[in-house]
Amino acid sequence: MKKAARVGPASLAEGVREGDARAIARAISLIEDNDPEAARLIGELFPHTGRALLVGLTGSPGTGKSSLVNHLARHYRAQGKKVGIIAIDPTSPFTGGALLGDRVRMQEHATDENIYIRSMATRGSLGGLARATGDAVLVLDAAGKDLILIETVGVGQDEIDIVRLADVTVLLLVPGLGDDVQTFKAGVMEIADVFVINKVDRGESERVERDLKAMLSLSRRQDGWQTPVVKTVATEGTGVEELAEAVERFNAYLDQNDLREQKRTERWQERLLDLIRQRALERVLEVAVGKESLARYAGQIARRERDPHSVVEELLRTAGVNRG
Amino acid sequence: MKKAARVGPASLAEGVREGDARAIARAISLIEDNDPEAARLIGELFPHTGRALLVGLTGSPGTGKSSLVNHLARHYRAQGKKVGIIAIDPTSPFTGGALLGDRVRMQEHATDENIYIRSMATRGSLGGLARATGDAVLVLDAAGKDLILIETVGVGQDEIDIVRLADVTVLLLVPGLGDDVQTFKAGVMEIADVFVINKVDRGESERVERDLKAMLSLSRRQDGWQTPVVKTVATEGTGVEELAEAVERFNAYLDQNDLREQKRTERWQERLLDLIRQRALERVLEVAVGKESLARYAGQIARRERDPHSVVEELLRTAGVNRG
Repeated sequence: MKKAARVGPASLAEGVREGDARAIARAISLIEDNDPEAARLIGELFPHTGRALLVGLTGSPGTGKSSLVNHLARHYRAQGKKVGIIAIDPTSPFTGGALLGDRVRMQEHATDENIYIRSMATRGSLGGLARATGDAVLVLDAAGKDLILIETVGVGQDEIDIVRLADVTVLLLVPGLGDDVQTFKAGVMEIADVFVINKVDRGESERVERDLKAMLSLSRRQDGWQTPVVKTVATEGTGVEELAEAVERFNAYLDQNDLREQKRTERWQERLLDLIRQRALERVLEVAVGKESLARYAGQIARRERDPHSVVEELLRTAGVNRG
Repeated sequence: MKKAARVGPASLAEGVREGDARAIARAISLIEDNDPEAARLIGELFPHTGRALLVGLTGSPGTGKSSLVNHLARHYRAQGKKVGIIAIDPTSPFTGGALLGDRVRMQEHATDENIYIRSMATRGSLGGLARATGDAVLVLDAAGKDLILIETVGVGQDEIDIVRLADVTVLLLVPGLGDDVQTFKAGVMEIADVFVINKVDRGESERVERDLKAMLSLSRRQDGWQTPVVKTVATEGTGVEELAEAVERFNAYLDQNDLREQKRTERWQERLLDLIRQRALERVLEVAVGKESLARYAGQIARRERDPHSVVEELLRTAGVNRG
């Protein structure tokens, strides 16, 4: 009888490991809320992770990521694989409404217990979307998903940080959408293991493909991988098989060349830096400043009574952060 | 004779304050390199800042920001104002070439000593582009620039962080470029104090304007400002006067409603959080891990021998970061 009453993190971890959708949902909510329980839960789940294949998909708004993810999920489900989807939610609190597509999508898969879909969004400046996404991926991994699809909108630093979680990264381009190969920001083209030109029925796709292949022929990846270009019409599911094959080819390439551990180590190094940054900030704020007085310091700086670097030095000293 | 030999930070600060272009360039390079001298220099310059009007301009690639910034700079120079421009450089190391427009631009203004143009780019994961840009703005401010134009490409979190430095933020949209009002990411629409629909000669601008005005009519800013929509053809300079007027109107609004100090305080609060995060990370890395061993920790995590949160706890303890 003692056991039955207990609903602590141990049973939550158990629930997650059994693949229970409600347990997964609760675990991810704890992560989103930056709840202290979340770190403990991840500690418990962590030894049971590292099995899922993580596939990141990114591209500008309107490139058709959601359609493609939807078709990919269906493809993997048809192979009997368990699928998790994390959609980084681009909804603006100002405009609203972008969740609609997600709800439609969830209805399609609602009766299938082997697919789990979750939208995530930034919560405040202390949030850290990449960190929360990384931990949510660990939850789905521990829950026994074979494939975890991580979908992000856009091509900024936050997307780069998020796709960096993935084993295989797919970058979508659409002809005539202003995302010319030349205009991509630093680091964006480099992250793609597979390129997709979507909506190839719209014309102009030959030019995009030519530009892309020209660029790829000029470059050489350190790991020797030759980035393939797959053409799709996501709304109709055309090219989805080819995309899944390209993903699988890169996955096999990672194993054949002993690259998987190396890549995961590099990624964990980035995530460690991010975690240290965040936890250290939390400690400094706890120890050296209350939430009220941070505004007071900011006011002094805004009025030019103090300079920002001397304020930060003082706060770090107070929090006991040593100089090297 | 003793004086003449001295070329330390004091004379660099003096050079900056005199508006000397070489001193400004050296100061910004120190900032980009995260040189310890940079913090001391900012400390010296800081009391002499806060006078310039900071105008941020952002928008997707291809919206014509550079043209518009160029025309704006010309407009302000014609009024006898001193202008600084910081262009956040979107050049990908993979594709190269995006600096070309900047060089062309610099040539146009090369003979004018009252305009200073600088491109900045991320340097490694420890870089912190928003922080470096913030300090570079302080340098131009101390150098006596009346207006500082900060130009960023894209609409991600890094751009939001950068435009957050500005007093007035201008967001560019272009008809038919896939950046529909509905698809903007969280936080992007909210940051605009002035909207610009550029390339209105390209058609479809009526739809964009209608969508934008519909969205604006549904929202109400806390500060009561009614965000204007300006139409431009940046390549021809059409609408630049109107844009400058809209910027000036918002600037006057800040003063009339005692909003400037409040807004600057809010922004300094964000920047303090960023600085604490970064400096604390640097200390933890100095004290608790050498660069080699961070990779070792990451390897242990990648092999699931340890979990990330316990590693971070240990590192913070070693660095003396107290629990609250």
